[in-house]
Amino acid sequence: MSATVFPPMSIPVAVIGATGSVGQRFVSLLDGHPWFKVVYLAASDRSEGKSYAQACRWILSDPMPAWAREMTLVPSTPQAVQGAQIVFSALPADQARDLEPEFARAGLAVCSNASSYRRDTDVPLLLPEVNAEHIQLIRQQRIKRGWNGAILTNPNCTSTGLTVALKALDDRFGLRRAFVVSLQALSGAGYPGVSSLDIIDNVIPNIGGEEEKVEWEPRKMLGKLGSSGVELADIRFSAHTNRVAVIDGHIVCASVELGRAVSPEEAIEALRNYQAALPARDLPSAPNPVLVVRDEADRPQPRMDRMTGKGMTTVVGRVRLDPLFHIKFVVLSHNTIRGAAGGSIYNAELLVKEGLL
Amino acid sequence: MSATVFPPMSIPVAVIGATGSVGQRFVSLLDGHPWFKVVYLAASDRSEGKSYAQACRWILSDPMPAWAREMTLVPSTPQAVQGAQIVFSALPADQARDLEPEFARAGLAVCSNASSYRRDTDVPLLLPEVNAEHIQLIRQQRIKRGWNGAILTNPNCTSTGLTVALKALDDRFGLRRAFVVSLQALSGAGYPGVSSLDIIDNVIPNIGGEEEKVEWEPRKMLGKLGSSGVELADIRFSAHTNRVAVIDGHIVCASVELGRAVSPEEAIEALRNYQAALPARDLPSAPNPVLVVRDEADRPQPRMDRMTGKGMTTVVGRVRLDPLFHIKFVVLSHNTIRGAAGGSIYNAELLVKEGLL
Amino acid sequence: MSATVFPPMSIPVAVIGATGSVGQRFVSLLDGHPWFKVVYLAASDRSEGKSYAQACRWILSDPMPAWAREMTLVPSTPQAVQGAQIVFSALPADQARDLEPEFARAGLAVCSNASSYRRDTDVPLLLPEVNAEHIQLIRQQRIKRGWNGAILTNPNCTSTGLTVALKALDDRFGLRRAFVVSLQALSGAGYPGVSSLDIIDNVIPNIGGEEEKVEWEPRKMLGKLGSSGVELADIRFSAHTNRVAVIDGHIVCASVELGRAVSPEEAIEALRNYQAALPARDLPSAPNPVLVVRDEADRPQPRMDRMTGKGMTTVVGRVRLDPLFHIKFVVLSHNTIRGAAGGSIYNAELLVKEGLL
Amino acid sequence: MSATVFPPMSIPVAVIGATGSVGQRFVSLLDGHPWFKVVYLAASDRSEGKSYAQACRWILSDPMPAWAREMTLVPSTPQAVQGAQIVFSALPADQARDLEPEFARAGLAVCSNASSYRRDTDVPLLLPEVNAEHIQLIRQQRIKRGWNGAILTNPNCTSTGLTVALKALDDRFGLRRAFVVSLQALSGAGYPGVSSLDIIDNVIPNIGGEEEKVEWEPRKMLGKLGSSGVELADIRFSAHTNRVAVIDGHIVCASVELGRAVSPEEAIEALRNYQAALPARDLPSAPNPVLVVRDEADRPQPRMDRMTGKGMTTVVGRVRLDPLFHIKFVVLSHNTIRGAAGGSIYNAELLVKEGLL
Repeated sequence: MSATVFPPMSIPVAVIGATGSVGQRFVSLLDGHPWFKVVYLAASDRSEGKSYAQACRWILSDPMPAWAREMTLVPSTPQAVQGAQIVFSALPADQARDLEPEFARAGLAVCSNASSYRRDTDVPLLLPEVNAEHIQLIRQQRIKRGWNGAILTNPNCTSTGLTVALKALDDRFGLRRAFVVSLQALSGAGYPGVSSLDIIDNVIPNIGGEEEKVEWEPRKMLGKLGSSGVELADIRFSAHTNRVAVIDGHIVCASVELGRAVSPEEAIEALRNYQAALPARDLPSAPNPVLVVRDEADRPQPRMDRMTGKGMTTVVGRVRLDPLFHIKFVVLSHNTIRGAAGGSIYNAELLVKEGLL
Repeated sequence: MSATVFPPMSIPVAVIGATGSVGQRFVSLLDGHPWFKVVYLAASDRSEGKSYAQACRWILSDPMPAWAREMTLVPSTPQAVQGAQIVFSALPADQARDLEPEFARAGLAVCSNASSYRRDTDVPLLLPEVNAEHIQLIRQQRIKRGWNGAILTNPNCTSTGLTVALKALDDRFGLRRAFVVSLQALSGAGYPGVSSLDIIDNVIPNIGGEEEKVEWEPRKMLGKLGSSGVELADIRFSAHTNRVAVIDGHIVCASVELGRAVSPEEAIEALRNYQAALPARDLPSAPNPVLVVRDEADRPQPRMDRMTGKGMTTVVGRVRLDPLFHIKFVVLSHNTIRGAAGGSIYNAELLVKEGLL
Repeated sequence: MSATVFPPMSIPVAVIGATGSVGQRFVSLLDGHPWFKVVYLAASDRSEGKSYAQACRWILSDPMPAWAREMTLVPSTPQAVQGAQIVFSALPADQARDLEPEFARAGLAVCSNASSYRRDTDVPLLLPEVNAEHIQLIRQQRIKRGWNGAILTNPNCTSTGLTVALKALDDRFGLRRAFVVSLQALSGAGYPGVSSLDIIDNVIPNIGGEEEKVEWEPRKMLGKLGSSGVELADIRFSAHTNRVAVIDGHIVCASVELGRAVSPEEAIEALRNYQAALPARDLPSAPNPVLVVRDEADRPQPRMDRMTGKGMTTVVGRVRLDPLFHIKFVVLSHNTIRGAAGGSIYNAELLVKEGLL
Repeated sequence: MSATVFPPMSIPVAVIGATGSVGQRFVSLLDGHPWFKVVYLAASDRSEGKSYAQACRWILSDPMPAWAREMTLVPSTPQAVQGAQIVFSALPADQARDLEPEFARAGLAVCSNASSYRRDTDVPLLLPEVNAEHIQLIRQQRIKRGWNGAILTNPNCTSTGLTVALKALDDRFGLRRAFVVSLQALSGAGYPGVSSLDIIDNVIPNIGGEEEKVEWEPRKMLGKLGSSGVELADIRFSAHTNRVAVIDGHIVCASVELGRAVSPEEAIEALRNYQAALPARDLPSAPNPVLVVRDEADRPQPRMDRMTGKGMTTVVGRVRLDPLFHIKFVVLSHNTIRGAAGGSIYNAELLVKEGLL
């Protein structure tokens, strides 16, 4: 996050799905946030009425913020979070599908990490440093659905860093096709998630539903905003996804076909010079810098580089010629910060800045 | 290995580079071999005169064979292994370059795991279940170099399983291009190899020199034997190589462009029906079966599947349509058995069977 | 297991709790057993009627035996396993408490891995190489309870190897007190068991209920069989238990106070010469040898040594003087083979041999 | 570190052995230090003349400080670090033995992490929160050796947290005997240190020379300062040391015999109320708090708790009755921060505060 001092605000927000692994990241990242003040934590019925400290098996190494410990969990309904203006959703996709529209209808802005509405034509799939202008989709959404609130989504964690890097290349050279293979961290599967017996001394060469997301989501984010939603970018993807024994930080190996042949130096220069659009800069969670290119032969590495830019920066390395397409490289992005909770918060900040709350 | 009972022979062999991680696999796999009897273990000067048990930090979980424990280490020279007919070489590439020709000149067949001579036009780069006929190259080699012995090489461990799978597809459909991304085991880096501080909770997205090998070696193995060596197959590769926290067993994710569009079922059928050429079957180390295709959504996995067929079988899974090329899939191969020591022994068995010793 | 050829028998047996991690070990170890033929696999109601292959997420690296794949799961009732003479129980403790007596009442011998009845005065807590004579307790059990069948238990996996080593020392020198600290493998927690997020780059310094078991169970096994059960040995224990990132194989660090001061050499000699009582030798699953003492400074290690004696041998190392008590050392035992399924099978073999079936 | 604002000083310091794993921690922890300004980085002859960035394979996840990158490495001699007043030594023990006295003789205060001089009667073995008064030993040292400088040492990383906890108990109840078993992190072995092939899915139940240190060092630190050095405390230890697959943070399981029986609540209260002596508080690196007692059944855990108090706080948990002695518990301490570089810096701060520089 930028060193800028942000004018303090005190916008009341709720976190729903607050006890899970992404919910915990929301709580941790919202601790001390200059604009947002958590006034409700919501969880499943089972936990209702308990304090957050009682109901939540905290799995982050940063301690649970003191203000959260004693907060009493409320149900995941608009009635229960009255007064909140923004809802951060860490719900699983099936629950999100049912519950998120209720909040939007009730006038709340739902910043969701769930996949349920990412493909809806009037729902922004948003990485502010990539497609800040897509936030305008919520004007269409409000008209079409008659909502006072809105639903904004952030992409799947594997698409996140990849799309930031692809955007920088697409802007400069055009992008046609990409082969991408992920080596994904365990925190992406939630808690308890992957059994230790399945991953110690092992790799799981499949993550259910992930490849379809990685092959589609970047096309929406790199697409053009039109009067009837976003026109998908004419880019084709092939994805393989793997789970590896890493706590946090997704690696993606990518080979890309561009609009023309480029040298690694040109590609690196395009990546290094990439800037977010103006509205997406100078926000409390804006990655600073947006993107780092490492020169070492063996970087980025998850354990060493995932916290670059407080976990919001996309880290690229090994930019080199590809014998089949044009350029190949490695991308690293923190999957529960930039790729999940941090991304939703950044989206909410853009919403505030654009006066769309 | 096949359940066939092999006519026992007692061909005297030596292992050079016997104390390293691949050398230990040679010793372990040659224990009780029906044809080969280890008469010498050779190591660097530093170890000369010590017993194998004294000089070697044994890292395999199978115990060191009793006969090896008390064997006195000899120098890596033809004079020191007099009487041996075959030399199994686990030398590092720089030492192999200097020493292996001396053994060949002295009349020994060198079955080498080193990369030094793999690209020489008169040296076979051999996977018997893929290109058994390439062993005939040593006739050219002997004439050209005036050697009584010979050098035979097996490919890099990452190329190994991949090439077996590609061969099955190439035979049936033709093969044009392949994107391959590896997730490689630690034993491939030797011992002590990769520091634990570099790989726990981490991935290293580069293995020095590996990508060049993976992009070239399959072309030789899938090429045609002609009167002046092997004509490289007209197939193009792009490789990304990664190190992950796995003890043994390399995973490769592959997307391939074939001569025509095929369904996953056709591809699976071609893989399942693939057979080694006749001379490469019924050998003590012949993989049985050559190739297994798993149906589960999350297999092959290194820890679960690496010992399939005593570590000699190539295991394929997740065969599915590729959105950019034709077919994508995952390959697993045991890197120090099929991909190293076991491969060299299999080569030696073919040599014996073909009467070329 | 011994190389002895055992007279083949064909005693029909059932495995209950067959789909869990210990249940799978039963299936794997009973594959090809010379005396026992699996005629039923039982599981929870949820799985009833499915084939074993359908209902079971197989987690062993040895493949599921072909005969088990198509076996239809039956309910865990005596009626459903009619014809079986022995039941191997891999049930959780709460279910075992209710169900195991039903089988015993119906005339079956229950060889249980559960903790439910270990403390009952008429139930043998059995390690054949330690206290084979305790099997006679089932005579008291049958009279007292009016059962035709019986319940036999094997100890907790951490007590197992430890007690074998302590027995050797107790026999020779007397044993008074022991401090023991375990570093336990993940498979001991079942499947899915420990979340990968809890153990990668981590240690969990507690295993619920384990310390009480380790402080009590060896006292029963090292106790004397009397007319009213077993008199607990007058030995006192203090235990700390920890979970570490190891797949299989429990390490225990032990410091022991003996009846007199002894040198490490004396202790090693007592350990090396230790023999099981006659009835416990020459059984198909008898560990061969019972106990190995390693001389290296850094052994035993779980990954290297857990399969010693097919996973049935207790491995001891680092035997040295203890500055507070007398002797300290390290013990390794395979927790799901010797410490669970293999132990129950060994118990059943002793039962057959002693004519108590 | 305390939130106090410290009066800024600018004492020139050198780090010797700067490129190794502990050397890197020194550089990282001295970045922005309010009192110390690094003016020299020294390394072996091999690196002399190179920049720190060139010579050092940086293994911390915090990036290398910018000021260090371009600093030219100097030799490890007093002449080469002219102008520095304090030398932080991360040398291996054999080099430290030869080199550290040269610096002390030349008038520099050597704050050493090496074991070479820990046992010398006139050399303080110092944990400021435990035995701040021992720093007065350097008055004896200077008289006896005729040095203007001095050598101060910090203990072995496993003794560190353990001794803090024992001190709290010894002060209140008296301490007689302790059984201690460590589960130690990989960073304690330096870089590259432990091979990944030795520790994935494994435990190494021995750390060379460590048990002797853990059985002796706390006795000196808990001893009384007299006119002829420190009188060793009359406490006896038995230690087992193990290496586990953890990056940072040593766990120690301890069972202690006290001067009298105490309840866990009394012990917890003594631990929680423990305070450093006045001179050791309010220093930039003073742990704040000195000691934390966790109430959860499964804490402390290395990955979750090692950064407590910026890695300087000792974390204790599972305080409970011991069946053989009085109390048992678990201690966690960050081995390269509190247990190495951070400890030496804290020692140097005390030296400055006490006017002994």
